[in-house]
Amino acid sequence: MHSVHFTAETSSNGVVERDFTLGEVPGVLWSPASGSDHAPLVLMGHGGGLHKKTPALAARAHDTVTTWGFTVVAVDAPGHGDRPRTAQDEQARADLRQAMAAGDAERIKSISVRYGAALAQRAVPEWQATLDALQALPEIGTEAPIGYGGGISLGTAIGIPLTAIEPRITAALFGGGFVVHQALIEAARRITVPVQFLLPWDDENVDRQSALALFDAFASKEKTLHANPGDHRNIRWIGVDNAFLARHLGHVGASPA
Amino acid sequence: MHSVHFTAETSSNGVVERDFTLGEVPGVLWSPASGSDHAPLVLMGHGGGLHKKTPALAARAHDTVTTWGFTVVAVDAPGHGDRPRTAQDEQARADLRQAMAAGDAERIKSISVRYGAALAQRAVPEWQATLDALQALPEIGTEAPIGYGGGISLGTAIGIPLTAIEPRITAALFGGGFVVHQALIEAARRITVPVQFLLPWDDENVDRQSALALFDAFASKEKTLHANPGDHRNIRWIGVDNAFLARHLGHVGASPA
Repeated sequence: MHSVHFTAETSSNGVVERDFTLGEVPGVLWSPASGSDHAPLVLMGHGGGLHKKTPALAARAHDTVTTWGFTVVAVDAPGHGDRPRTAQDEQARADLRQAMAAGDAERIKSISVRYGAALAQRAVPEWQATLDALQALPEIGTEAPIGYGGGISLGTAIGIPLTAIEPRITAALFGGGFVVHQALIEAARRITVPVQFLLPWDDENVDRQSALALFDAFASKEKTLHANPGDHRNIRWIGVDNAFLARHLGHVGASPA
Repeated sequence: MHSVHFTAETSSNGVVERDFTLGEVPGVLWSPASGSDHAPLVLMGHGGGLHKKTPALAARAHDTVTTWGFTVVAVDAPGHGDRPRTAQDEQARADLRQAMAAGDAERIKSISVRYGAALAQRAVPEWQATLDALQALPEIGTEAPIGYGGGISLGTAIGIPLTAIEPRITAALFGGGFVVHQALIEAARRITVPVQFLLPWDDENVDRQSALALFDAFASKEKTLHANPGDHRNIRWIGVDNAFLARHLGHVGASPA
């Protein structure tokens, strides 16, 4: 088993940010400067084509640390961020660019589904290894409750199969904004932990019905669908239950903003 | 124009409850015991077969008064609560009972649609007259912001056509749980104020797609869909944005609980 190797540390506004590598996977851990012993741990996934420190993700991570006192971890998905691209990654990206240039919606969809599923297959064991390694750190340990913290698109396409097979995850925040395929629906049927699902109501290239079918498939007794108008690239979320993860993972020291 | 005639007053836990009649329409006004000058006014509708003081409605009204300092008004819908039933009401109820006994889903649906539309046609001008009369009270006046506060089923079947033609309503909370017909979709298309829409995800006798089509139809730039598992009769709402009306109507004195 690989262990976490910290490579850099910075601190701002009460949040410590530590870069790490775990084998060949680069990651980042955000935690309260005031300490985080056994605080709940939130796994955040980034969107397709983005990376572990994408501004929106980093902002949500900071918010989660300062509001709830949680620790947040993000890693670069295979072929994303600081990671090398395999021949498969390059081919999928080239195919996708070509299909987009041709405006071929069917082909965009089939490439996205195939590549998304391939990425998830590579990413799920990496997340599990990351969890193993983080739990070996004394500050996290095996007592910290663990939640999946989104986000939409690729972060959910990876998070659903991960949550379906990973009993350490006890609450999960998912979202729409990507093409849903049958394997994802089947993984959702195996998820029983509380789920919050954020749906951009007007995603241009994504079938709304398939996202609703995905929400329908979660076997969770507690699940919440929240939809606002807009595309996932420019949506303004309003009235979302921001306390969802805190309610399920338990809430540490810091008071809500 | 009829004016409000108060017939009884009680008070409990900081909430004054005043029964009134307006012509032949019986209503109830809940307001803060500490005073409510020009406080926002929330109109609450009750479900089919229920009445203005149904426990769930009264509880929501109390909560709205004590948390936000608002005034809440509810009236009995035509043929409901303390109101006499017309021959049309009796016929519709008898038809509905018969269709339910026969388990004839199509007939239940067609009666519900026809009767619901007829009730809305009678109820909308009553709500407008109620607004006129309440605005003539010095404690409310024409400065109080006005919102429609739900609820699901009949309360929404009446609230949508009301909000579509009533410019005094500047924010509205609606919900699913009833059969949506085309006239409602068309009324929804004329609504541009912020809308919060609560959808019971598993209503046995209601087509989920028609409720989603209704949410889709609102022309509002700001609209939020919130769904939880369950039937509208026994749903447990989780993670709903309870500050929705307060955010849009403005918030008086009392601090949020």
